[in-house]
Amino acid sequence: MPERRTQILQAAVRVIAQDGVRGLRVEKLAAEAGVSTALIYYHFKDRAGILHAALEHINHRAESYTDAAFTSGDPVTRLERLLLLELQDTDEVRENSIAWGELRASAVFNDGLREALSATTRAWNADVESLIREAQAAKKVAADVDAGLAAEHLTALVEGLSERWHSGSITLERARRVLTSALAGRLR
Amino acid sequence: MPERRTQILQAAVRVIAQDGVRGLRVEKLAAEAGVSTALIYYHFKDRAGILHAALEHINHRAESYTDAAFTSGDPVTRLERLLLLELQDTDEVRENSIAWGELRASAVFNDGLREALSATTRAWNADVESLIREAQAAKKVAADVDAGLAAEHLTALVEGLSERWHSGSITLERARRVLTSALAGRLR
Repeated sequence: MPERRTQILQAAVRVIAQDGVRGLRVEKLAAEAGVSTALIYYHFKDRAGILHAALEHINHRAESYTDAAFTSGDPVTRLERLLLLELQDTDEVRENSIAWGELRASAVFNDGLREALSATTRAWNADVESLIREAQAAKKVAADVDAGLAAEHLTALVEGLSERWHSGSITLERARRVLTSALAGRLR
Repeated sequence: MPERRTQILQAAVRVIAQDGVRGLRVEKLAAEAGVSTALIYYHFKDRAGILHAALEHINHRAESYTDAAFTSGDPVTRLERLLLLELQDTDEVRENSIAWGELRASAVFNDGLREALSATTRAWNADVESLIREAQAAKKVAADVDAGLAAEHLTALVEGLSERWHSGSITLERARRVLTSALAGRLR
């Protein structure tokens, strides 16, 4: 039943985005997803299994809304679009972004998710790094920019801005401006 | 009894840095601080009062270890020193930094701390912005750099890197390199 599994994961991300990872109880998730707790245990084994699958689910969802950024335009435009897509006021992006921040924050205290988060972070850095290298090959970005450092800089900045956005220390509009100016400053 | 109050707050920051904001129970804090729960209620009224006072305490502590950055050197060096001081492997900085990230993360789900966090963030941005303006006045940074945007960029980046550091997605050494390269790129 792949649909039921997806339905449970969508509910899990909603619950995490509303109440945090620590608000995610299996009973609550069952109610939100409209399924039995037994079905949740059947699919995910335990709470750690749910969190890992939820992380995969948001990664997969992020790919679906960021794929558009890869299709056309010069590499610098695509890079800007890719990063700005993470700072959008749609339910899907907001939920994804809050859930991502929560999984990251809970990994500070809980080793279970660290390796999976680290792998996702590496993959994201690698995507951004390859766009920067493409831009360098096209002479749109100076050859002496360290693409690896610049990629980690930009993705960590998106996370920092997202967390400020969700916690009310910056407006979404301002966060987008900060990111755009950082990109322009870094990749001129 | 200002000393008792400080002792309780130091214990509160330790507990938050070990178990998160959601791990902070008054009974646990009393045990960690070696005082009665009654004394904690006397000083802070309730759990929200403890969290607000803990935020003030880490702000105050951060000032004590960042003051050194303001004393000498040209403004760009002072700025770099100020920001790198947040990425140091000492107990005090690590505890402060984890507690700061936790208070920020909990504000996503809890309105109570938002205004205090936002005010602290504004003050930090203003400190960095004034160093950038000083550097511009000294012709060390180009006049066309928007000091306000650059300040928000750099402080949000420190937060993003700190959260990756504590959750195991970047080493401290690499985080410092990313920050240094971001500064050089932004303020050349």
